[in-house]
Amino acid sequence: MTPQDLIRKKRDGARFNENEIKAFIDGVSDGSWADYQITALVMAMFIHGLNLTEQSALVRAMLYSGETLDFSDVDAPKADKHSTGGVGDKTSLIIAPLAAACGVAVPMISGRGLGHTGGTLDKLESIPGYNVRLTTSQIKQVLKKCGFALAGQTKKLVPADRKLYALRDACAMVESVPLIVASIMSKKLAEGLDALVLDVKTGNGAFMDTLWDARVLAKYLVAAGKDFGVNTEAVISDMNQPLGRFAGNALEVYECLNIMRGEVDELSQPTLDLSIDLTARILVLTGVEPDFEAACAKCLEKIRDGGALEKFRKNIELQKGDPTICDDPGKLLEKGIKRFDLVADGPGFIDEIDTRAVGAAICAIGGGRVKAEDGIDYAVGLECRTKLGDSVSKGDVIGTVYCRSKSQFEAIGEKLRNAYRIGGEKPKYLGLVREIVVA
Amino acid sequence: MTPQDLIRKKRDGARFNENEIKAFIDGVSDGSWADYQITALVMAMFIHGLNLTEQSALVRAMLYSGETLDFSDVDAPKADKHSTGGVGDKTSLIIAPLAAACGVAVPMISGRGLGHTGGTLDKLESIPGYNVRLTTSQIKQVLKKCGFALAGQTKKLVPADRKLYALRDACAMVESVPLIVASIMSKKLAEGLDALVLDVKTGNGAFMDTLWDARVLAKYLVAAGKDFGVNTEAVISDMNQPLGRFAGNALEVYECLNIMRGEVDELSQPTLDLSIDLTARILVLTGVEPDFEAACAKCLEKIRDGGALEKFRKNIELQKGDPTICDDPGKLLEKGIKRFDLVADGPGFIDEIDTRAVGAAICAIGGGRVKAEDGIDYAVGLECRTKLGDSVSKGDVIGTVYCRSKSQFEAIGEKLRNAYRIGGEKPKYLGLVREIVVA
Repeated sequence: MTPQDLIRKKRDGARFNENEIKAFIDGVSDGSWADYQITALVMAMFIHGLNLTEQSALVRAMLYSGETLDFSDVDAPKADKHSTGGVGDKTSLIIAPLAAACGVAVPMISGRGLGHTGGTLDKLESIPGYNVRLTTSQIKQVLKKCGFALAGQTKKLVPADRKLYALRDACAMVESVPLIVASIMSKKLAEGLDALVLDVKTGNGAFMDTLWDARVLAKYLVAAGKDFGVNTEAVISDMNQPLGRFAGNALEVYECLNIMRGEVDELSQPTLDLSIDLTARILVLTGVEPDFEAACAKCLEKIRDGGALEKFRKNIELQKGDPTICDDPGKLLEKGIKRFDLVADGPGFIDEIDTRAVGAAICAIGGGRVKAEDGIDYAVGLECRTKLGDSVSKGDVIGTVYCRSKSQFEAIGEKLRNAYRIGGEKPKYLGLVREIVVA
Repeated sequence: MTPQDLIRKKRDGARFNENEIKAFIDGVSDGSWADYQITALVMAMFIHGLNLTEQSALVRAMLYSGETLDFSDVDAPKADKHSTGGVGDKTSLIIAPLAAACGVAVPMISGRGLGHTGGTLDKLESIPGYNVRLTTSQIKQVLKKCGFALAGQTKKLVPADRKLYALRDACAMVESVPLIVASIMSKKLAEGLDALVLDVKTGNGAFMDTLWDARVLAKYLVAAGKDFGVNTEAVISDMNQPLGRFAGNALEVYECLNIMRGEVDELSQPTLDLSIDLTARILVLTGVEPDFEAACAKCLEKIRDGGALEKFRKNIELQKGDPTICDDPGKLLEKGIKRFDLVADGPGFIDEIDTRAVGAAICAIGGGRVKAEDGIDYAVGLECRTKLGDSVSKGDVIGTVYCRSKSQFEAIGEKLRNAYRIGGEKPKYLGLVREIVVA
């Protein structure tokens, strides 16, 4: 089977068998396929799609393109959560220590910010000294000692995905369900999990903006998990506004620490609610708790009694970060940072927030990468002072921008202000968790 | 417009405007697009297709990606013929000198053999000393002196096509009508022609094997020619058997010289017939002759009076070849070559010839390239001793293989023998020229 044979077949809309999919991924991994042959085939896959058999074969071939993690000597059920990405989407920082506090081991391999969305690794690196570049054996050590580890993808884990991902990004081939599923699931399945909860975002700040697209993605993700014997469930959650109070790396860690310290208010409540929902599902899927209600109660207890915070403190110590931020989260906020308010120009209800524009504005002042090689300014971001449906009067503060200078604010202030639409009618509340997809 | 913007657009099946097509071809030509981005977009074009507006813009952008030829100081109408490729398809060797003898200048930029088909440049190089690597000014000089020039593509002519063609070949993206049309027409239109005749082959030895596919290709080719103000006509001709008596480089030149010397028999007659048909169309399209009948008569006259042969002799002199082959074509046949007959294993009619297999067998013994870097053995080939519909008895000679050794014959003899199917009924004769496409 030459590259041409395989490309021709998918070009003409035919279906691949397992061996053909494996030959392609082998060619990607061992460098025998040229990049231009890879992108030609991926474009044909993008346009013609993959059926469930091909999807499953692609996940399998990618998963076994590198090493897999073996945590069989970790004496606890293993589980993880993955989000498809959003703005202010910081739940991993609570779910990992919370699940660990409830007795589930979480070997979480995370990613960097992508496009307008944030990434867990970038958020963690806003903690002074925190090291996300762990080897496989370091991940295992940290996992054994505190019940969870937060790390970047190692070089040996699913190498085919790194290459495919870079090429998809350079060739506008990211938003394809089978390719997204293969990319996510090959990495998650390489973690050797018992259970997996997927947070599929929907709305104007998500990659899958319609509920329909999110449902399709969720169904394929769950099917792939089941296919590999992992108890998998997906939550479709709302991304029509930033999640919680803050969007911005250090600001989000700050919010999570406050929540784990029991300091929750109306604006940060959605962050806690979604974190508990997702963690509770992990507890049920791993059999640690008998049902969702009991699991939610257990999660709330481990927030209230400081169990989650203590797990996080221990993890920060093990991953070489500064654990004193757990006692004084305000340390994360840089003293020199400037704050500028966004104010309502008339009375009404916040009836739409262009969440993608909010994420892009934060990236534009250094909160994320515009180009892959860009550095990150951990201190900048947005404090959401209002939510969808809030009633505002002219001059009320809608949000506060954290940035380095007035000129930075001037560069994004109007875009951010325009991202918040104020209308005459209170919009219908859609709910934080829109749907659950179980199989 | 970034590469990603353009790729995303065609990926989703949208239509490009002229500027977008130009931005793509500019990116191909100036190297600002990576090869993997080019193939991603070409695959999307392959699958979703191009409409006539995009097709026209693509031809234009490719045409102007390099220099064009200016023969405005050549005092004769300029015309050319292009064939989509076949086996034994040698008419260029007659058409160019014949049209020149009739008063039409033919600046013919030709190609090498491709796949199982032969190429005019390879055939010409079987003439000792003949030089096909002419610069633009050499092409003009030869054209002025003898009325036609036969040369390969210069580096400056349609550079985007060279890159696109190599990538299409490596990624199984050759057989796409809009891409074929753009590749052919950008090169032909760069010749600055008044008229163009296209010989679109159909049948089991052609790239477009069905009449339907050939028709579609012919219509798009003709439309592209008209679009640029060139009088264009397409002939759909039969390629269900090799054309004429010989297939093989030197053997085909030998056949053409014999024809121009007035030595035509039943087996070489189709070569003359198709050459006259295509040349006559050139004469009508350029206004040199008033109608097809008069034009055919003129062509026949220029074959009979030796006018075409004298033009060819003069051209060979100018392009540094050995002109004495015009007096003694037998010089082209190597003395040491061995001949092996293919014989009928039973009585019946030749009712099918797998022409692609015939071409591939000739390539396999060196008559064409199996890999791009292969050299060519000009002396080898097949003499067709029978045609479709011929009645044969057991033991009759069907064809004669010209090769270097018995082992070469053994390598392809059975395949060639099996390419000729002998059946009980005389097949229906489809005709050499199947259809004419005028607009």
